[in-house]
Formats: sequence, structure tokens, C-alpha cells
Amino acid sequence: MAREALDVQGIQSTQSGRIFATYWIEGDRQEARARGEALALEQSHEFPRQYAPVKADRSLGRVESVGDVHDGGADVIISYPQELTAFEIPQLLVVLLGNGSLLPGIRLVDFSLTPDVVKALGNGPALGIAGIRKKLGVPHRALLATALKPVGLDVEDIAELGYESALGGIDLIKDDQGLGNQPWAPFEQRVPAVAAAIERGSEKSGHRSFYLPVFNPPAGQWNKHLDIALENGVGGMLVCPGTAGFDALRYVRDNTPDDFIVYAHPAFLGGWTSSDKHGIAPEILFGHLLRLAGADSVIYPSFGGRFSFTPQQCKDIADFARDDFEGMNPALPSPGGGMTVERVPELLDFFGPDTLFLIGGALHATGNLVEGAQKFRRAVEK
Amino acid sequence: MAREALDVQGIQSTQSGRIFATYWIEGDRQEARARGEALALEQSHEFPRQYAPVKADRSLGRVESVGDVHDGGADVIISYPQELTAFEIPQLLVVLLGNGSLLPGIRLVDFSLTPDVVKALGNGPALGIAGIRKKLGVPHRALLATALKPVGLDVEDIAELGYESALGGIDLIKDDQGLGNQPWAPFEQRVPAVAAAIERGSEKSGHRSFYLPVFNPPAGQWNKHLDIALENGVGGMLVCPGTAGFDALRYVRDNTPDDFIVYAHPAFLGGWTSSDKHGIAPEILFGHLLRLAGADSVIYPSFGGRFSFTPQQCKDIADFARDDFEGMNPALPSPGGGMTVERVPELLDFFGPDTLFLIGGALHATGNLVEGAQKFRRAVEK
Repeated sequence: MAREALDVQGIQSTQSGRIFATYWIEGDRQEARARGEALALEQSHEFPRQYAPVKADRSLGRVESVGDVHDGGADVIISYPQELTAFEIPQLLVVLLGNGSLLPGIRLVDFSLTPDVVKALGNGPALGIAGIRKKLGVPHRALLATALKPVGLDVEDIAELGYESALGGIDLIKDDQGLGNQPWAPFEQRVPAVAAAIERGSEKSGHRSFYLPVFNPPAGQWNKHLDIALENGVGGMLVCPGTAGFDALRYVRDNTPDDFIVYAHPAFLGGWTSSDKHGIAPEILFGHLLRLAGADSVIYPSFGGRFSFTPQQCKDIADFARDDFEGMNPALPSPGGGMTVERVPELLDFFGPDTLFLIGGALHATGNLVEGAQKFRRAVEK
Repeated sequence: MAREALDVQGIQSTQSGRIFATYWIEGDRQEARARGEALALEQSHEFPRQYAPVKADRSLGRVESVGDVHDGGADVIISYPQELTAFEIPQLLVVLLGNGSLLPGIRLVDFSLTPDVVKALGNGPALGIAGIRKKLGVPHRALLATALKPVGLDVEDIAELGYESALGGIDLIKDDQGLGNQPWAPFEQRVPAVAAAIERGSEKSGHRSFYLPVFNPPAGQWNKHLDIALENGVGGMLVCPGTAGFDALRYVRDNTPDDFIVYAHPAFLGGWTSSDKHGIAPEILFGHLLRLAGADSVIYPSFGGRFSFTPQQCKDIADFARDDFEGMNPALPSPGGGMTVERVPELLDFFGPDTLFLIGGALHATGNLVEGAQKFRRAVEK
């Protein structure tokens, strides 16, 4: 959805201590303003103005501007006092779109924070693009990821896939998000075996590949899973914010060494992006919100595969992930989902080299994973 | 969206050890079947069939039936081996709708589990309707809830609101979901003060009201917040699964005494219910999925307020929350959102007495919260 650039920075510079959210609200300009006023109240007081004690005005959201109508609605900028977020991610989500997500014809299309909030949340990705490149020793070319699958294999089968992927020169080898803690290859047994196999493959290939096991444990087992990962020297983890909660990204970042990669997977996030009249604009969700929570790289479904984002949406997500949002490290966009090695030249041209291309099943298409991986690697080295 | 009843039970009885999900899939019957086959693969292997080792077939999803076309699509039942869920809530969500949520024109409209999965997840609500009624000593009449707000007040102001709500005879007095851990009334200071005030109000009124503080802390502070709540003898907590993660419901249930009420709030869940072509059918999300995770009562936006569910959707949610799904305790439907005391007779007639009516700001309409609460109480005692 196209939208005009609103002068958030201009408004913000005159008001310290407030955060800003832009919502596209369905209706004409007058309706959008009226609904925006109601939304500002909903997301802060959720209480009738006429009965609210004056003291509580310090927590109130307010409409800052209403843009021109486009796509059947108008962009309304609402500001909130930064304290309303409690300087915590779960509460920030409540402020940005908690009840608002349940209202018809409202979509979060932009937001900005204060230096205090960004700092309290930990300044986004610890590594970002430069940090991942440094860790991998790959300064310029596009980066490569693959997924270990299918689920249902035994530990030694998965370890062998990890070994072959490393031997073929893939930079980051992650668990499939479907590969959690099933009895076929329990996390506790899989992680040491796969980590060791990838290290063997790396030694043989001469390029250091890293293992990123999945992070999606039940509550109460987070530290156990982190400990297993850290004890086995993995390169980072594949975190599922849709199922583990957005704050899981921050938690993994904050409880691991400085060079630990936080890689975000989009499973169970599709509710937010399935309509252009509700939810969250994809470039904001993937490019800013998950990055704010700590994602060094964000996976999202690319165009031309089996998912539904348009080329423009995919480009926007990549641009937003890499932009200078709130002074945070840029994150590595990681388009995936039904991509093939044959499409890499086109995708490289489209997304540029600061991209982590993710190809899973298609690397097996030659019948030889090492060859598939090598072909993938050569495609980005050209 | 109307849909025909599909014979899940009939299919299921012949196949032990598999869970079943019904998806409405856009398209004609043939398209729905083809997309259903692709979805069964996506949600399990996410790997090309032709390259998958035979061994991995033990984890594969499969289409069990395709219904007739309605509303521009057909209901497709897919079964998965129960082991695929890892017997954990975060992984169950990945199986049911992880990547599938990102595909166009697919909606989860039903699911059923196995006794092993239900048992491993803890059998749903510990209390349910009967348990909440027993705890409150209210065997028959409809139950009452209110929310402490607006955010921005000081601890003593909020405690006073709690006192007055208890004095007026409200059964469950919860924090507003917007009332997290802001500097105006930090959780650690608010909970003891409000708990004590509600106890004083209860002693004076002669009816035991319970305090339910919000549970939406950052990861790593979950036990701290639970400890504060338990030390202050609260009646339960208001858990926000949209922001804290669905598994937060289970975690709170499993780490508190048997008579602790788990009350689920819908903040940041609207992405799942904003379209009838995507996401999750509201009665399944609120009536079955949150209940499976442990919710004794589920808040959802009622019709006639400022939210968008239809009367039929609201009725369906209530019916599904109370049904005999998987042998779990029924959960108390808790419609809220812009309701008024004047509407209680109509709503009581519509929803029936096994309902927890939630009215927040409107109790202040008389200018006297105690009177507003008493009026609310009388409305359900008639």
C-alpha cells in the first residue's frame, strides 16, 4: 500500500519523551480523525474521557496529525508518552496495537521511539549485518542459509545433512522451525550431534559454517535450551517470535555472548500481514519491530515462491531491515520460501548483496546436498 | 462463516495417535484439495516429497477429507502424527498454522487432539467454570468482572478503585491490560496495595472479591511477577497470550496453586481474527485454543461495543468455550469491550448465566464507582 511520507521526525523533534505510531485508518479524513481520537484513547486509557481524573492525563495518547486519504483511509499519527510502554517489549506491543488489533480497518504502518525506550530495550540487534559478516569472515558477497529437514529423521541423519551443508559451503545452517523437540531427534541429543557434524564439515571445507538450532521451547525451559546451545558452541539460534513471543528475541540476545546470531523465523506471524486493512505493514513488522526486539536477521517469505508477498513488499522489507531506524544496527533481510538456486542471480540483482538467502529443500534437487550447496555458493560468488 | 459439520470424530476413531486440523481453503473443491495437499506438506516436512527419505514419512501430514464448497472455498481436514507437536504448545502452534498463516486464503476453523497431547499439555483449565464458581461461592448467577484503570494513576488511586469495586460486589477485579509496570504504579508496589484494598472492600461487603493483576512481564521476570502475585494472595492473573505468548497461560496455571484463576486477555490477538479468509476462526481461537493452553476464562470483544465481532460470532465463542472439547473443563466466556450496565439484561439473555461479564469504564458513569458496581451486581441478580 502506497502512503505519503508523514513528518514524524518534524513532529517528534518538538516533543521529547513521546513515542509515535502511524495507523492507516479506513474512512474519509474526518472519520479517520474521529477513529484516530478513539484509538489514541483505546491504546492508553481505554476509559471514558469525562470520568478520567486529570492526573491520568500524563499517560494519554493523542492524535498528532491526519494525512490525506489514500487506499480508502488516512494515515493518523498518534503519540504516547514513553512511560506507557513500561520500557518493555510486551507492554510496547500492547501500546502499539493491543486492543487496536481487534478494531476493524486499522493497520499499524509506522512507529518511532525515544532514545530512552530504544536503550532500555537494548538497542536492537547486537550484531546486525556488519557483525554477522565479521563473524563469518565474509565481507562482501551475499550470505547463504539452509534449513535442516525434513522433520522425522533421526539425529544422525540430521547431523549428516548438517555436515554436507557445511562441506558445500553454506554460511548458516539452521534447524527447520518444524524441528523442535520431537521424539525422533530430541533437542538435547540433536544439538551436540549437529554442532559437531557442522564443525567437521567446516574443517574439511575450509570455511567456517555455523549451526543455528531452533529456539521455541515451552516456557520454563528457555534457559535449559540456551545452555544446551551454548555448551555446544553454536553460532546463534533460530527464534520463533510468533510462538515464543516477540520478547524471546531480546531474551536470547541478552543471555548469550556478543557474537551470538539471533535469526527470526516468521512462523505463526501471518495473522499480522494477511490483509492490507489490518495488522501490521510487513516492512514494519519484519524490518523494524522484530529488529527492535533483537533480530540480527529476519526470515520472510519471498515473492515467486508459494507465499503471497509482492516483489515490492519484499523489497520494502529488505530496505526497512537495513535502514537507520532509531540508530540500531541494520538487520540482514533473509528472503526464503520455495526459492531455487536457479533464481539466485535474479534475486541477487533484486535484493542486493546485503542479503541472507535461505534455500532449504531445493538444495536437494540434484540428489546430492553437497553439490546443491556448492552450486548455491557459486551462484552468489559470481 | 457457516460451515458444514465434518466427521472429524469418525475419521479420528480409526486412527490413533494423530491430531486433526480443519482448514477452510479458498478455491473450488479441486483447488482446495491440491492446496490442502501442499499445506499438509508445508506444516510437516516443508520439503519436496520426491527427495524426502522414506523414514521421514512418520512425521508427514496428510489430507483426510475435502468438504463441499462454501463461502468460496472448501474445508479440508489434515491429520498430523501427534509426535510432530513435540507435546508442547509453541510447537503445536507451528504445526497447526506456523507457515500456513503466511499462505493466502487459508483459515484454521477447527482442530482436535489426542488424549496423549491433551494430557501432556495439562488438560486445559485447572478450574474452569465450576472451579471459578466454587472459589467465588457463587453457584448460579452470572459473574462480574471489572478492570482497574485508567493507567497513569498512582498506586493509592488504583487501590482505591479496587476497594470501591469490591465494596460494590464485583467478583473479579483485574488490572487493565494497559496497566503493566509503568513508573506511575509499578507492579511490585501496586499488587500488594491493591490486593490489600480489595480484601478490605470484601470484608466490608461480605462478599469475597478477588484481585487479578496483569501477567505480561518481560521474559526473565515471569517468576518474579508470579512470586509477587502469590505472596499477596491474589485470586489469579490476567494473562496476555498475544504479547507474552500462548504458553504463558500454561506456565501460570502450572506454577500456581490449584485454585488460581487464569484469565486470558485478547490484546494483540486481533491479527488472527480480522478476516474470514485468514487466521483462526474466533470460536476456535478463544473457545478452544486459549482454553487448551490453560485459560479458565477468556475475554473477547462483545458485539454492540466498539469492536467488530457479530452477535453470532460472540455466541459461537461462548458456546465453544463451554463445550466438552477434549474432555477439558469448560471455560467461562467473558465478553467485554464498551459494554454498559444498561445492556446487562439483554446480554444475560443472550449469553446465559455461565458468563463472566466484564465492564470497565462504564461503571464510573454514575460518578460513583461503588454505586456503578452495585448496579452491575443487581442487574445480574434479577
